[in-house]
Amino acid sequence: MRRSIVDIREGSDFPLENLPYGVVSEGGSRHVVARIGDYFVKMGVLVERLPEVFDSYGFDHVDAGNVFSADSLNRFMDAGVEPRKATRRILTELLAEDGELNQLRNNPELKDEVVKPLDDPSISVQMPAVIGDYTDFYASKYHAENVGIMMRGKDNALMPNWKHLPVGYHGRSSSVVPSGTAVHRPNGQSVPANVDPPVPSFGPCQMLDFELEVACFVGKSSHLGNPITIENADKHIFGIVLMNDWSARDIQKWEYVPLGPFTAKNFATTISPWVMTWEALEPFRVPAEVQDPKPLPYLDGGSVRKTFDVTLDVSIRAPCGESPVRVCRTNYKHLYWTVEQMITHHSVTGCPMRAGDLIASGTVSGPEPESFASMLELAWKGTKPIQLGGENGERKFLHDLDETRACIFCDENVGREAIRALLRTCEPDSCVMVLIELA
Amino acid sequence: MRRSIVDIREGSDFPLENLPYGVVSEGGSRHVVARIGDYFVKMGVLVERLPEVFDSYGFDHVDAGNVFSADSLNRFMDAGVEPRKATRRILTELLAEDGELNQLRNNPELKDEVVKPLDDPSISVQMPAVIGDYTDFYASKYHAENVGIMMRGKDNALMPNWKHLPVGYHGRSSSVVPSGTAVHRPNGQSVPANVDPPVPSFGPCQMLDFELEVACFVGKSSHLGNPITIENADKHIFGIVLMNDWSARDIQKWEYVPLGPFTAKNFATTISPWVMTWEALEPFRVPAEVQDPKPLPYLDGGSVRKTFDVTLDVSIRAPCGESPVRVCRTNYKHLYWTVEQMITHHSVTGCPMRAGDLIASGTVSGPEPESFASMLELAWKGTKPIQLGGENGERKFLHDLDETRACIFCDENVGREAIRALLRTCEPDSCVMVLIELA
Repeated sequence: MRRSIVDIREGSDFPLENLPYGVVSEGGSRHVVARIGDYFVKMGVLVERLPEVFDSYGFDHVDAGNVFSADSLNRFMDAGVEPRKATRRILTELLAEDGELNQLRNNPELKDEVVKPLDDPSISVQMPAVIGDYTDFYASKYHAENVGIMMRGKDNALMPNWKHLPVGYHGRSSSVVPSGTAVHRPNGQSVPANVDPPVPSFGPCQMLDFELEVACFVGKSSHLGNPITIENADKHIFGIVLMNDWSARDIQKWEYVPLGPFTAKNFATTISPWVMTWEALEPFRVPAEVQDPKPLPYLDGGSVRKTFDVTLDVSIRAPCGESPVRVCRTNYKHLYWTVEQMITHHSVTGCPMRAGDLIASGTVSGPEPESFASMLELAWKGTKPIQLGGENGERKFLHDLDETRACIFCDENVGREAIRALLRTCEPDSCVMVLIELA
Repeated sequence: MRRSIVDIREGSDFPLENLPYGVVSEGGSRHVVARIGDYFVKMGVLVERLPEVFDSYGFDHVDAGNVFSADSLNRFMDAGVEPRKATRRILTELLAEDGELNQLRNNPELKDEVVKPLDDPSISVQMPAVIGDYTDFYASKYHAENVGIMMRGKDNALMPNWKHLPVGYHGRSSSVVPSGTAVHRPNGQSVPANVDPPVPSFGPCQMLDFELEVACFVGKSSHLGNPITIENADKHIFGIVLMNDWSARDIQKWEYVPLGPFTAKNFATTISPWVMTWEALEPFRVPAEVQDPKPLPYLDGGSVRKTFDVTLDVSIRAPCGESPVRVCRTNYKHLYWTVEQMITHHSVTGCPMRAGDLIASGTVSGPEPESFASMLELAWKGTKPIQLGGENGERKFLHDLDETRACIFCDENVGREAIRALLRTCEPDSCVMVLIELA
């Protein structure tokens, strides 16, 4: 591990090898930044002060000033793979103690202008990109089977199409929010158990759930009528964030036929605000499991499919103030479909994919009960409650003020990031947004 | 009917009573405009030249210059009802021969600067707004029943939830395009008839369909956690466009379980580029049919629900050059759910609705076979082909180069608008966008 000229505390999730990107607000204006330790690098200022570095590191046809003076990552995402790789090299060489670029190392004033502490009270972390469209897939066979058994019984658990295409649906981009945003319990229609014929009632969701997912930001845009091939799909990927796809199970069960989940999902979807790039994840690439049956040629790149060996955790802290309890440990490699296959299938009709579009994996459940990545599965529809400890620590679904936190571990050093959000009931006639209390 | 100072040809769809809004591109820059006859009114220039008119007509708290200097209608949409009503009054009084505002009537130079001909070759009509999210409902009982019978048989045609809530799903905003954009036949997976167990094959869609819909642009935005009540829903509506929700039926049938339509819909959705406002439609308001069962209170405003008595037509012209043949005549009032109910249900969880979001009705089929608003229903899944005349005029679904045109008639004078798009097969290895040939 290379040492940095920035002071990075022991065990930080943001060493030199991570370098995710995001957006911070400072006195009302938004800046594209990279994160290192508990600091951020103002990319716009960096380009302004050191334009020659960007010129010489491969920004041949891309205007780095234009890309990094933006107030979101969208232009950077759209610039494609080479400028992103160049930026990573530049940041690494500027920020490493032994880096080949000494412009920050030898100029403490410039360094202080470019590298700023995140704990400054005038700084807040924002959504990293303007999300054009958000799509949610259903790429874990374990999750699809578990939910299928509970919703439709064992015989119809996995639909006949499931192994032939990555099943997905269009989600709601307006309710995607960054970690820390208060999420409140939605109201909606549901049918009490054993009411036949079904007559719905209205009220707060009684089966509020999390779903741990990994979501990919689309990089370079494609255009209407131009499908992205499986061979080219990785050129359209920017990087990933963690996602909590909050789900109202009782509402979902009633509304989802025949057109899919709607209000059960659109009240909030939380993402982590720091986008880990494809390059940062590269060391954790592993072959994906062989698919059986072999997918149709447009979904089959011919070579070995690759995924990531990345551990994912979910812990929940009950509001009584107990410590967070880990309820799930799973791995990204459990997904049956890769994100390259998702993007290829999504665009096979000619659907345009735009820089900043979000492509989520679906719940990343694994084969073992402890790797189930939603409460629905962990507590098996309420039949096996889980324990968070203390009084009132039994859970079938989420309670008000439970704090759900997700983490991603690439290894001991790279890329741990938390999603936090509080939940609180909003009474039907009270529509006030609940204030967030960060953990 | 009031006469205008603008020359409007007999039978124009854009008399003084219509005045829809849109966006035109002129030498590379986009302008917010209103349409009258075959002319457009440059709203930005109008405000710049006559700011006092906007001040005195009720733009109290809204910066008209900011709203109309934009390159899309989003700011105008977000300004809400009163500024929109004020703008309609201003335009009507400026453009009527007997209008109370004489600034254009008495100043031909100013009039020529503000009111421009649409047939100028440097002018092209663009998307009216940046669509944040697009949602498609399923609000015609006749359509839901027809499709249900064909997909699931008569006993499961209408799902138990259908009469209790407006069923809808999130669509894809990146592929919403304005009338005239070439639409090409998508590729995808489908299962040939009578293959059991199902094994999909890949290729061009064989059951390409249109769906005539009416789509509503959201006006004033709402915020996360703040549901829009049924009483306030109309304050969040800007106006409507016609929509063709192109559908790949064979792809849809295979992919849609359990999460709803996905690639069968996301290759293109065409809208008419001129947005008719709620005010222009007001004279055509009629009471909606009484709903049975009575909806839950949050969807029931207490007073009589209102809809519009508006005739909708679809005609198709075969590529051999025959005249267009009308294949459908239906009416907006056939919808079971109103757009106010759709918006209320959509946001009941606290889902934010943003200015420029698009809320489509679903296929506006009526009770009679000639009012069915998709080929699937008109030709009843291919069992009753329709005739477009001439050789090769028999149709079960759309053929390449068929031109589908939709019209809306409020009465003899107000608001007829066409959607046009050509269809052509795109071979799997050819991803070139097809050039449009306007009729």
